[in-house]
Amino acid sequence: MSAVTLKMIAAELSLSVATVSKALADSYEISQATKNTVSEAAQRLGYVANPYASSLRKRRSKTIAVVLPEIADSFFAQAINGIETITQAFGYHVLIYLSHESFLREQAIMQYFKSGRVDGILMSVSEETSDTSHIKDVIDDDIPVVFFDRVCEDLPTAQIVTNDFESSFNATHHLLSKSCHKIAFIANSGSLSINRNRVLGYQKALQSVGNSNELIVNCGKNDEENYQLLTSLFNQEERPDGVILSVEKLTPLVYQVCNDLGVTIPTQVKVLTFTNLGIASFMNPALTTVNQPAFEMGQAAAKALFKKLSQNIEVLDPELVILPSKLICRESTR
Amino acid sequence: MSAVTLKMIAAELSLSVATVSKALADSYEISQATKNTVSEAAQRLGYVANPYASSLRKRRSKTIAVVLPEIADSFFAQAINGIETITQAFGYHVLIYLSHESFLREQAIMQYFKSGRVDGILMSVSEETSDTSHIKDVIDDDIPVVFFDRVCEDLPTAQIVTNDFESSFNATHHLLSKSCHKIAFIANSGSLSINRNRVLGYQKALQSVGNSNELIVNCGKNDEENYQLLTSLFNQEERPDGVILSVEKLTPLVYQVCNDLGVTIPTQVKVLTFTNLGIASFMNPALTTVNQPAFEMGQAAAKALFKKLSQNIEVLDPELVILPSKLICRESTR
Repeated sequence: MSAVTLKMIAAELSLSVATVSKALADSYEISQATKNTVSEAAQRLGYVANPYASSLRKRRSKTIAVVLPEIADSFFAQAINGIETITQAFGYHVLIYLSHESFLREQAIMQYFKSGRVDGILMSVSEETSDTSHIKDVIDDDIPVVFFDRVCEDLPTAQIVTNDFESSFNATHHLLSKSCHKIAFIANSGSLSINRNRVLGYQKALQSVGNSNELIVNCGKNDEENYQLLTSLFNQEERPDGVILSVEKLTPLVYQVCNDLGVTIPTQVKVLTFTNLGIASFMNPALTTVNQPAFEMGQAAAKALFKKLSQNIEVLDPELVILPSKLICRESTR
Repeated sequence: MSAVTLKMIAAELSLSVATVSKALADSYEISQATKNTVSEAAQRLGYVANPYASSLRKRRSKTIAVVLPEIADSFFAQAINGIETITQAFGYHVLIYLSHESFLREQAIMQYFKSGRVDGILMSVSEETSDTSHIKDVIDDDIPVVFFDRVCEDLPTAQIVTNDFESSFNATHHLLSKSCHKIAFIANSGSLSINRNRVLGYQKALQSVGNSNELIVNCGKNDEENYQLLTSLFNQEERPDGVILSVEKLTPLVYQVCNDLGVTIPTQVKVLTFTNLGIASFMNPALTTVNQPAFEMGQAAAKALFKKLSQNIEVLDPELVILPSKLICRESTR
């Protein structure tokens, strides 16, 4: 028995296979009238939707890749757990690749994917990435890419982010409300989307109260460099009385530097970190955090990818999903 | 010009290719006399050793897999960084696979490797793994496996561990020296090699001072279950006055339970964790830890694997490398 194919429906209706495919997948690109016609023909001919039809056309690896800058980070650890709840349901394997914040390594990884080793990619770019042609190449090769957290806004694909601008705006206002006058914002170097939006939120909050003490510090490559950087920050004549850390791994260093210089948190400096660290409540002092919906962002990214992998959708729609973060106030900003 | 091959040397000497290969690789399986004969013939025929000769015989992926139970763990994060310093030097890609402490997922991952997707595997087994036939199958398929940290002692391959028995023995003695009389040991469930050795070290230390208050608790699958478990542990009539955590992720939970029950660390209970958490010094109170040489263990595991991948070695020698851990005493056991 030969099954009814999309091609047969397309021939029957004098439509393209792509149109039939999109109509059955309820794509916004297709009119309701066409969807009705296609749906009626599909029923009449006895077409049975096969969620894995596209996997028959190409040799599928049933594998997706997750490309990350770093593994020692509570956000990425939780995002991966979210991703795997979805991939497991679809029976897919997950491979994790680390760029270690290096553009060259990220390029090499993307090059490697062009051999067709994976069916799709979930990605958070390195802090060095500004040119995105290595990612565009892969998308052009028909390997779908979904960004999460650190996205490339110029590439037309699904992007899952949190409300970085608003969270940073609120975090800055929290410190301002605690009488901080000179708030330092410590960020990754490079042109990351999350940095850009968080810096904008910080700047906007300062502007909203006429505070002109903008102080943005880009962190370095290693712990020693960052220790020096933070030491000189706190040794300034007019020391910051508030610090927003956009980089989780700097948290122990800030506590160390304050300890070594005899600067007391929160009386002399208030500290706040963008992090999902479970230990935050039990730090000395307990750390105020912006908690990101990491698990949910991972899930949303994987779901967006499986829209393409498991349905007859030719191209992944550019869509922006924004999931909110949460400010949790603790002792370090009291 | 056609190059001299191992096969030509083997034919010349009426030996098998395997013997010639092993002789040139200075294998312990080959007698010195044979090594001399082969070496002489190789020189006479103009054989040039090619470290990548074996990669020409088979289609190599230049990819190794790292199979881990969990990503949100300071030990594994640092071990991966160690692994990648070596793989980078050899120009190999690293794929990370997570078993999430599930035997079934670990089995599925090993099955997947049999398709030849990777050239070698570095592995730390799940807490559910006791049957090791899924790993033996892969080794039998000539894909080399090196274990690190959570090893399978029954499989004849390289194993990189730390001195778990001794570290646990010392940690228990540290608590005994601080006048603890009832020390609970909290471990993963299952039959992990690291658990076994740490439990033995704990028992041996108790025995050495005639303390018969042995109390071993196996932790559960999720946070809620573990919270209940720890709550009933601390609600016992004769509460433990010392706790050794063999599982990093339980650290925030122990602090939480003590906080919720009004049990003070370190005056009412002393706490010590096997962990590499950078934040340990800045916890409230600062946490006493057994720090494992995670980075170095990752490096040693990768080096052992590349002995096989980059040299003409047919079989990876069973070897046990033991790198020492370090007890760092802080406020939580004062």
